[in-house]
Amino acid sequence: MLQVYVIPSFTFESGTTLENVPVGFRSWGRLNHAADNVIVIGHSLTSDTNVAKWWERCIGSGRALDTDRYFVVCLNVIGSPYGSVSPVTINPDTRRAYGADMPQATVRDTVELHRVVLDRLGVRKVAFAIGGSMGGMQVLEWSFYGDYVRGLVPIGVGGRHSAWCIAWSEAQRQAIFADPTFRGGSYHPARQPEAGLAAARMIAMLSYRSFDSFEERFGRERTNGAPDSPYLVEDYLHHHGEKLVRRFDANCYVYLTRLMDSHDVSRGRGEYLDVLREIRQDTLVVGMESDVLYRPSEQRELAENLPNAELALLHAAHGHDTFLIEQKELSDVVKTWRERTIDPHVL
Amino acid sequence: MLQVYVIPSFTFESGTTLENVPVGFRSWGRLNHAADNVIVIGHSLTSDTNVAKWWERCIGSGRALDTDRYFVVCLNVIGSPYGSVSPVTINPDTRRAYGADMPQATVRDTVELHRVVLDRLGVRKVAFAIGGSMGGMQVLEWSFYGDYVRGLVPIGVGGRHSAWCIAWSEAQRQAIFADPTFRGGSYHPARQPEAGLAAARMIAMLSYRSFDSFEERFGRERTNGAPDSPYLVEDYLHHHGEKLVRRFDANCYVYLTRLMDSHDVSRGRGEYLDVLREIRQDTLVVGMESDVLYRPSEQRELAENLPNAELALLHAAHGHDTFLIEQKELSDVVKTWRERTIDPHVL
Repeated sequence: MLQVYVIPSFTFESGTTLENVPVGFRSWGRLNHAADNVIVIGHSLTSDTNVAKWWERCIGSGRALDTDRYFVVCLNVIGSPYGSVSPVTINPDTRRAYGADMPQATVRDTVELHRVVLDRLGVRKVAFAIGGSMGGMQVLEWSFYGDYVRGLVPIGVGGRHSAWCIAWSEAQRQAIFADPTFRGGSYHPARQPEAGLAAARMIAMLSYRSFDSFEERFGRERTNGAPDSPYLVEDYLHHHGEKLVRRFDANCYVYLTRLMDSHDVSRGRGEYLDVLREIRQDTLVVGMESDVLYRPSEQRELAENLPNAELALLHAAHGHDTFLIEQKELSDVVKTWRERTIDPHVL
Repeated sequence: MLQVYVIPSFTFESGTTLENVPVGFRSWGRLNHAADNVIVIGHSLTSDTNVAKWWERCIGSGRALDTDRYFVVCLNVIGSPYGSVSPVTINPDTRRAYGADMPQATVRDTVELHRVVLDRLGVRKVAFAIGGSMGGMQVLEWSFYGDYVRGLVPIGVGGRHSAWCIAWSEAQRQAIFADPTFRGGSYHPARQPEAGLAAARMIAMLSYRSFDSFEERFGRERTNGAPDSPYLVEDYLHHHGEKLVRRFDANCYVYLTRLMDSHDVSRGRGEYLDVLREIRQDTLVVGMESDVLYRPSEQRELAENLPNAELALLHAAHGHDTFLIEQKELSDVVKTWRERTIDPHVL
């Protein structure tokens, strides 16, 4: 069940303050007496907080996110339309949705807001933070809360958003901007730029998969026998474009891609590698060999520079989405690490 | 200098016939007495026939495309706005540009049309055909002209357009379609869907480069000191988007991506690998290790199945565009192969 906590006041890195800030979250399991058996999950760009759905084989009794032993929480990111303050939230001043006027948050803002909520929930210590993609960015920002966080599992991410990833973000934003229904973000929420958002999603779907996964699944097959019918892979892209339009918002999409572009653990903290070397938590870095978006070289860089890190590479051909597809393998890898590194201190 | 040959009548694979079909081309060097010292160059998606400009270090005295010894020709592809019949050509029946009504051609159509022009130019035999990307598709189709073509140099391409490449094509088309100025392709040529075409180009620029090349060139640099100024890589994408809009046409872009999607040497000719094994020409397959669009696995597949082929892999980090950037290395590799394989029969 989605719960919403309203924080009376929250100030962003930029200095802007919002009042009565909703934060959506879901939780599983129970907080122990020491209030330190907490697993915090960061979700990815278009995911919601319903981990039981999108990571169903990672969460539950005996799995990496063991709900018998741990209190498992997933909080919605600032800017996402799934419960937290975002461009679709009504601005109390104007009584209209924030839209493009929503003050831009960073990954750090969202993690700090989540910490405030965890405080209110009585959490005294996070056993480990885990998440893939945008979720992994949050995990790395959790490292700057010192002893409050014992372990980190960043998946399919680097320590800062690469030029390559920023370029992917920008191509998607431009596809949205090309749809004049967008009107600089001032569209009515019921009439959003569907064609632009769908095109952005189709670009993103490329970045989440790989040459081999598309080739194996679609090849040059057509949707029906006719030689001029669409290729099956086109149909697949259209399907995903249409699906996202029904469940997401274009302003939120633009906003969250910019939030991800802000990701850089070293911003204002020193030289990049020096900053990595100061991260003390026990860390399991998970990478995917076929990931075309966040390259394994980035995860290697993390594992080599974080003092207490080890690296696990998943080998499936699904690309970036491997962490959402090969759940059994991921859960086993994380569980093994957790049992060795985290459980002795918590359970 | 661009020359244009008008072919009185040409029938497409689809059965459609066009009258008075212009074909743009450029040539360098002189046809020898035997009329067999001919190098045919296939150009890529948005290139023109001006090889002396975009392959300047590959063409000329002592280089792979040696204009002292060879008659070097580059013909413009059907659908491209650089001299051949295309959506921007005036339809004599309507006295307006064909636009979206231009009958769709395939790679085979364009190669057959080029053969007709070569015939009229007095060419009796092609020493070798060479080209990268869409140009490489043409090269592979030239193999089906038997003894008329002695050698092949397909670069950065596979024997058929992959699901992955079709998906990249479709994401770009959808960005164009998201711009309502496109109006199903019926826009006035002077008012084309600039935002959509620019977005398509930005997507394409990703596919032509690589993680490492972007990282090295741009990193997380901003266009100026201000922390909220655009990232340099965004500026780079915008620049390329705007540049293409000034020199290309959205209908042509959609048309040519569909022409590329048609690429499949085995269509109507039998089992894919069997068809490859029947290609008899001496072949140098060139691949690029960092190519994210046409993967080295595709070039390996060609080299392993074409009976008289060898493989050369370029190692630069530039991605697909390596064949346009590392020209010296490419020229040397092709020249070495040419001297051993082609020159003894021709010069």
